[in-house]
Amino acid sequence: MSTTAQSRPRAAHGELRAPRDLTASPFLAAARGRRPARLPVWFMRQAGRSLPEYRALREGVPMLKALFDPEMIAEITLQPVRRLGVDAAVFFSDIVVPLVAAGIDVDIVPGTGPVVAAPVRDADAIARMPELDPARLEPVIEGTRLVVDRLGETPLIGFAGAPFTLASYLIEGGPSRTHERTKALMHSEPALWHDLAARLAGIAVTFLRGQVEAGADAVQLFDSWAGALTLREYREFVQPHSARVLAAVADLDVPRIHFGVGTGELLPAMRDAGADVVGVDWRVPLDEAVRRLTANGEPTPVVQGNLDPALLQASWPVIEAEVRRIAAEGRAAAAHIFNLGHGVPPGADPEVLTRIVELVHSLEP
Amino acid sequence: MSTTAQSRPRAAHGELRAPRDLTASPFLAAARGRRPARLPVWFMRQAGRSLPEYRALREGVPMLKALFDPEMIAEITLQPVRRLGVDAAVFFSDIVVPLVAAGIDVDIVPGTGPVVAAPVRDADAIARMPELDPARLEPVIEGTRLVVDRLGETPLIGFAGAPFTLASYLIEGGPSRTHERTKALMHSEPALWHDLAARLAGIAVTFLRGQVEAGADAVQLFDSWAGALTLREYREFVQPHSARVLAAVADLDVPRIHFGVGTGELLPAMRDAGADVVGVDWRVPLDEAVRRLTANGEPTPVVQGNLDPALLQASWPVIEAEVRRIAAEGRAAAAHIFNLGHGVPPGADPEVLTRIVELVHSLEP
Repeated sequence: MSTTAQSRPRAAHGELRAPRDLTASPFLAAARGRRPARLPVWFMRQAGRSLPEYRALREGVPMLKALFDPEMIAEITLQPVRRLGVDAAVFFSDIVVPLVAAGIDVDIVPGTGPVVAAPVRDADAIARMPELDPARLEPVIEGTRLVVDRLGETPLIGFAGAPFTLASYLIEGGPSRTHERTKALMHSEPALWHDLAARLAGIAVTFLRGQVEAGADAVQLFDSWAGALTLREYREFVQPHSARVLAAVADLDVPRIHFGVGTGELLPAMRDAGADVVGVDWRVPLDEAVRRLTANGEPTPVVQGNLDPALLQASWPVIEAEVRRIAAEGRAAAAHIFNLGHGVPPGADPEVLTRIVELVHSLEP
Repeated sequence: MSTTAQSRPRAAHGELRAPRDLTASPFLAAARGRRPARLPVWFMRQAGRSLPEYRALREGVPMLKALFDPEMIAEITLQPVRRLGVDAAVFFSDIVVPLVAAGIDVDIVPGTGPVVAAPVRDADAIARMPELDPARLEPVIEGTRLVVDRLGETPLIGFAGAPFTLASYLIEGGPSRTHERTKALMHSEPALWHDLAARLAGIAVTFLRGQVEAGADAVQLFDSWAGALTLREYREFVQPHSARVLAAVADLDVPRIHFGVGTGELLPAMRDAGADVVGVDWRVPLDEAVRRLTANGEPTPVVQGNLDPALLQASWPVIEAEVRRIAAEGRAAAAHIFNLGHGVPPGADPEVLTRIVELVHSLEP
């Protein structure tokens, strides 16, 4: 990865697009390890149900329809940029989008999450897993192009689900708190597990490359449920596949963020998977995260995080004190991208998010 | 706490009960910091849905009815002792039992968990919180007496929910993944929070003392959801109340176990709350837990744990290797009580649990 924040011209529809000038982007500067002019901030799941304009646009539109509608993708991605003043847009999509595009029967059920019609639990089902033809992603990638055309000088973060988290949905058949079948498969049938995870890594690579080639300026690999694993499991069964995903986009020269919830035990292993920026949830203070990430003499990392989303419901003085504490702790890092420690909850007040952005921007970067 | 494993005579119904001879109990020896003749093992939630005899007995009996029926309590508590050969019984109850006994309208809904009819979220509701009259617990305590009468030389572990976990149910109105309202209350209205937590500590003390005075030989304080908190939050808002509960049973001279899920960041703080035994979930290896618990020169701790319950679905060679690894890592502790890292899942195969007990008993303690 180079250390310039200049955006690259990219081929799309065979034509060469005019480069956007992102040299002044605080988000990209921080993601590349430099202390920018102001502390950058964005929010995981900033494009979504917490915004009234999102709820209005989605009225009567099923989630999967919205996720494959280029105009809707573009508009929803832009909504929080307009309203909140964040330093990056995050692509409106879902980690199961590339699975759906590959032809796997996944529905997104309101109040539940992704539900897989035929869970993938044995050798036959894994052998039948389709590959992802990039052409099937076309409406999504067209959405990326529309976003980039309309974003101006705000960078766009593309994303994908990491192989473990995708595998858990496929194996369990939906969201799971315990990941029982997934862990049983990885331990009891490691060859099958590695086959499935490698296929999912391939799908994640196609999804990420599509977004970056269409103009995304950074990527975040979400391993949302990795915190359910031991370090030993993560290193043996998960890290190699996530590392393959991150390595497969290295030539695209965009910063790579890697994030999971409850990963206090896994932070160095997640960095070792090839992350340029390590996302940290609220359980580990950022200065402690930096200590763990440099315990063996590694270079000082770039970190992202880590306000507890639950505290968005607290009073403003509480939030302000937490934001200031986190910004101060983040100074232990090479650079810090302010964010929540997990996604924006649906019930969050957008006014509070706006105030947080203003406060973050007022602090020493 | 004395270091003998001799059971104390206890007053019950005004009469003096004959003491049970528990001097040979490997569980009590380990809980008191001595390496016993064999490695002791029990399982959190061993009395429950994983056992066919439990499902048969509960057929058509609502959970709350079972929890206040002395004969049913006794029989369900004894079932896993008979079948699995574990080194301790754990009282069949639920952390909401003392809330129900206090007159709070809580139901236990199958597939959901405790649901609170009128969530406790403001000063009025907190001021109206009833105290727990020990007499209201009588059917439960009669269950304790029946268990102790029938257990012979197997020790009984009584338990209670810690103030934070109880408060989360009351404030959120049921199980929560994010504890948003609970965290908002503790930060935004600390005086109200401390009032509520102190009341819940009082209820937990009454529940624990009732069980121990009726014959329980050890106690476990469950702060199941404490892992959602930062260390700072835990120390400021939670530890003082859990410490009060543990201190209030110190005179009863029974070992006190303290456990929560995902508490890798909190282990020393949970020990500092007054735990004689620190429960560890599967995310932190026991030798690493011991390192964290002795980082500032503290005495080598007794630990309990920590097989990932999800692995009960894995093949036997996988489970065997994990059990051996955990037993080896547990040798870093002053003593080790083998357990899962969380409760037995409803779908667990009791045959697997029995094999684990046999394997643990074959290992060097």
